[in-house]
Amino acid sequence: MNTQKTYAIGVDLGGTNTVFGIVDRSGNILAQASIKTQAYPTAEAFVEVGVQTLLPLIQQVGGIDQIAGMGIGAPNANYYTGAIETAPNIAWAHERIVPLAQMFSSSLSPLSPVFLTNDANAAAMGEMAYGAARHMKDFIVITLGTGVGSGIVTGGQLLYGHDGFAGELGHVIMVRGQEGRPCGCGRTGCLETYCSATGVARTARELLTTTDRPSLLRQKPLDQIESLDVSIAASQGDQLALDIFRFTGTLLGQACADFAAFSSPEAFIFFGGLCRAGELIMQPIREAYERSVMPIYRGKAQFLVSPLMDTNAAVLGASALVWGDQK
Amino acid sequence: MNTQKTYAIGVDLGGTNTVFGIVDRSGNILAQASIKTQAYPTAEAFVEVGVQTLLPLIQQVGGIDQIAGMGIGAPNANYYTGAIETAPNIAWAHERIVPLAQMFSSSLSPLSPVFLTNDANAAAMGEMAYGAARHMKDFIVITLGTGVGSGIVTGGQLLYGHDGFAGELGHVIMVRGQEGRPCGCGRTGCLETYCSATGVARTARELLTTTDRPSLLRQKPLDQIESLDVSIAASQGDQLALDIFRFTGTLLGQACADFAAFSSPEAFIFFGGLCRAGELIMQPIREAYERSVMPIYRGKAQFLVSPLMDTNAAVLGASALVWGDQK
Repeated sequence: MNTQKTYAIGVDLGGTNTVFGIVDRSGNILAQASIKTQAYPTAEAFVEVGVQTLLPLIQQVGGIDQIAGMGIGAPNANYYTGAIETAPNIAWAHERIVPLAQMFSSSLSPLSPVFLTNDANAAAMGEMAYGAARHMKDFIVITLGTGVGSGIVTGGQLLYGHDGFAGELGHVIMVRGQEGRPCGCGRTGCLETYCSATGVARTARELLTTTDRPSLLRQKPLDQIESLDVSIAASQGDQLALDIFRFTGTLLGQACADFAAFSSPEAFIFFGGLCRAGELIMQPIREAYERSVMPIYRGKAQFLVSPLMDTNAAVLGASALVWGDQK
Repeated sequence: MNTQKTYAIGVDLGGTNTVFGIVDRSGNILAQASIKTQAYPTAEAFVEVGVQTLLPLIQQVGGIDQIAGMGIGAPNANYYTGAIETAPNIAWAHERIVPLAQMFSSSLSPLSPVFLTNDANAAAMGEMAYGAARHMKDFIVITLGTGVGSGIVTGGQLLYGHDGFAGELGHVIMVRGQEGRPCGCGRTGCLETYCSATGVARTARELLTTTDRPSLLRQKPLDQIESLDVSIAASQGDQLALDIFRFTGTLLGQACADFAAFSSPEAFIFFGGLCRAGELIMQPIREAYERSVMPIYRGKAQFLVSPLMDTNAAVLGASALVWGDQK
């Protein structure tokens, strides 16, 4: 690969918007544009409009010869095949396997390499290239959003597993048996059902229904309560809301204690809206971890909030797939 | 490194015996000798006698110039530092950090490289070089002995973590809270307390005490029951013993379902005395795994019993550390 090429394309393909960015090696986004992900009947039409959107950005930085490659972060992405595999939330990828990396590669002049990975893996690459994990080789990024995602780096490499689908830590079982909460994956008791933004709202509704404890949260109709409401109430000192964060953080800390027994990371890096609660959630995570973890790991791991949350982290992370390949 | 050198030294350092072997690239042990691990007052005395034991073996295969390196499997071993760190069961390493790799290296002419890793990691290297994991890059070896150990390989590399202590899967928590069994690690509910040979005996004693179910196991004093007794009773069709294997295998299968969400391995390879029960334990493992695992992993992983159990697997595995470095 020509290491003179100084820019990488990063693509954040989400359920609503797809953002294209041109990123330099220092993590500056020099040009950016977006399209609606679902406005196209087929994957082919989506790629065609994507390429038309990208070409003027590429011209801005001196043409395709300046581009070292492209990285795409997307749901249900398989790194090994470069394909989106039957993504339930994307109409043009719902019932088929879309070889997206290959399609972009051949449509762009051609451009090579083009990498595809899932959102949380892209976030982990972004942390290693530009964020909290610079100079780290062993860390885990945990994304606390609508779901709980994870990107695991061991020995400086993203962990993909034999089929490309490793790192689904939102779906380890935290509550076994009947009493576990039903999960979107079809099972019960997954970490995600408790510790995602959705899980936090679910905990709030459970506590408001099963207890008569006073709370600011009672000012809102039960079915409209979101995790943000819990954050706001907690920041106002509402004890029920504080207890919800303590419960959520405690489960996360216990889960991280099991993850340590797996890959003994130097740091756990948290990303996503729930982290904006800051110490309200980070303190119970750390406390539960140190209390729960096997003694040989105690006191060794850092618990960090991603510094990239207010940037276009997904575009940065996707672009970092290109530099990761050049080491 | 000189790839002409055709032999590696493998050392299995156990609590009772230390076995030295000279191994060729095909996994044949050409010469072998052993000493008592604890017969020496200091680590220095142990290494001195170890070297005296090794030298005639080395002469048998043509001298030190034929030796590509040395691998040592030992408890509480840190791969990164090459040291045994305060091993509770080895008197000369109980209260100090013993730089064993360095000590053997400088005493043998010198010999380089000398690798040190824990027993289960050595077992994983052995499977990759000579056993069930040839041609695999992502697999987990689970050793079911006095404890439960693990060696995790991802992308063809042993997973060590940032401090060298990754892969303690015997210490993920399977039963949270008060009712978890106390573990030697100081916590409660660890996989090891249920699924080791000791755990199986513990389950037997619990069932014999808390129920009045008939069983062949009642012919033996409660405090003398071992996992082997449970195996023998099960092979004779004893229902209580069969239920113990089903319980043990079910917990292992559920644990493996969580491990899949971490590293999505191609195979789980089981090693150790409990595996001699064959399908009595392997069938419940597979069934619980397929029932418990996230749908994207279902039907993908193999569950294998190590083919190396009747060989000197620990010596083979330790020697494989040398070849692993030459790739």
